[in-house]
Amino acid sequence: MRVLGVDPGLTRCGIGVIDSVRSRRATLVEYGVLRSEPSDSVDQRLLVIATQLDEWLDRHVPDVVAVERVFAQHNHGTVMGTAQVAGIAMLAAARRTIPVALHTPSEVKAAVTGTGRAGKEQVQRMVKQILSLDHTPTPADAADALALAITHLWRPAGALQGGERSEQLTPAQRAWAAAEHAARR
Amino acid sequence: MRVLGVDPGLTRCGIGVIDSVRSRRATLVEYGVLRSEPSDSVDQRLLVIATQLDEWLDRHVPDVVAVERVFAQHNHGTVMGTAQVAGIAMLAAARRTIPVALHTPSEVKAAVTGTGRAGKEQVQRMVKQILSLDHTPTPADAADALALAITHLWRPAGALQGGERSEQLTPAQRAWAAAEHAARR
Repeated sequence: MRVLGVDPGLTRCGIGVIDSVRSRRATLVEYGVLRSEPSDSVDQRLLVIATQLDEWLDRHVPDVVAVERVFAQHNHGTVMGTAQVAGIAMLAAARRTIPVALHTPSEVKAAVTGTGRAGKEQVQRMVKQILSLDHTPTPADAADALALAITHLWRPAGALQGGERSEQLTPAQRAWAAAEHAARR
Repeated sequence: MRVLGVDPGLTRCGIGVIDSVRSRRATLVEYGVLRSEPSDSVDQRLLVIATQLDEWLDRHVPDVVAVERVFAQHNHGTVMGTAQVAGIAMLAAARRTIPVALHTPSEVKAAVTGTGRAGKEQVQRMVKQILSLDHTPTPADAADALALAITHLWRPAGALQGGERSEQLTPAQRAWAAAEHAARR
């Protein structure tokens, strides 16, 4: 299964694509940041972001698009632009009949780090570890998009099966299992 | 000039199209409400609204799309959906290279009623009067979309020219001039 994660934003929109490899592992396909010029009008900025989103969707053909659920109480100054980009990302997926999943920031943090109150650097470190990267994904928006995609991949797999023994898991699988365990407590 | 106004909303999205007739008058082309099912997922609801928006834009080919500017502090429960619909409306216009204008609710109220604190019924009454309708446009979302379009038409016309005499104006023109005068105080 291929998941495209979107951390919506009008100035910087994080985007990340991963593939599931067997049930509990994931590999990086590509990540990046979509940008628009703050000096442009909002409609032109949305068009620039939407055009880039379309290009990523057409190039990677994901099975699911995972979008961060935006709340009104977060980050007042930019929340309207963030909601608008989340909207156009959901619409772009729906137009391609690609299912959309929404995950809250704390759900994502809990899934990849084991705590819903993790900082951005902690998320970046765990994304690097889970995807076995040789570098930390930057900027944080891109790492957040990958973390969203990981959160989605990890969810439908369900809890660790009773027959699985943690000592037989790879480090990435163990990190995942620990995060899952912590998130379920 | 043809203006399409959008009062964004996910459950009810007001839409209204007017044409300018000479510099200070306007006639109704069409108004209505785009709806989506609250029980559907947000991405499917955005797709339903976007498809209807596209149909209106293709059918009426407006010169400008006027969208209500959404603020985070308004109407907490529905503000995210409202922002998302505003975003897809702006994007739909930008994709057709139609200019987008944003107007605040108080700007619209001041333009059509003379006070930024007017109620919904007052806006409906003035929209009926300005467009010389034989009925009050309902629901309020549709009237608000028409009021947005009127606000936009009225703005670039500027203040009343010194040579114009109010007694030579039609009732709709007088209502407009009065609203303009009041808004400028």
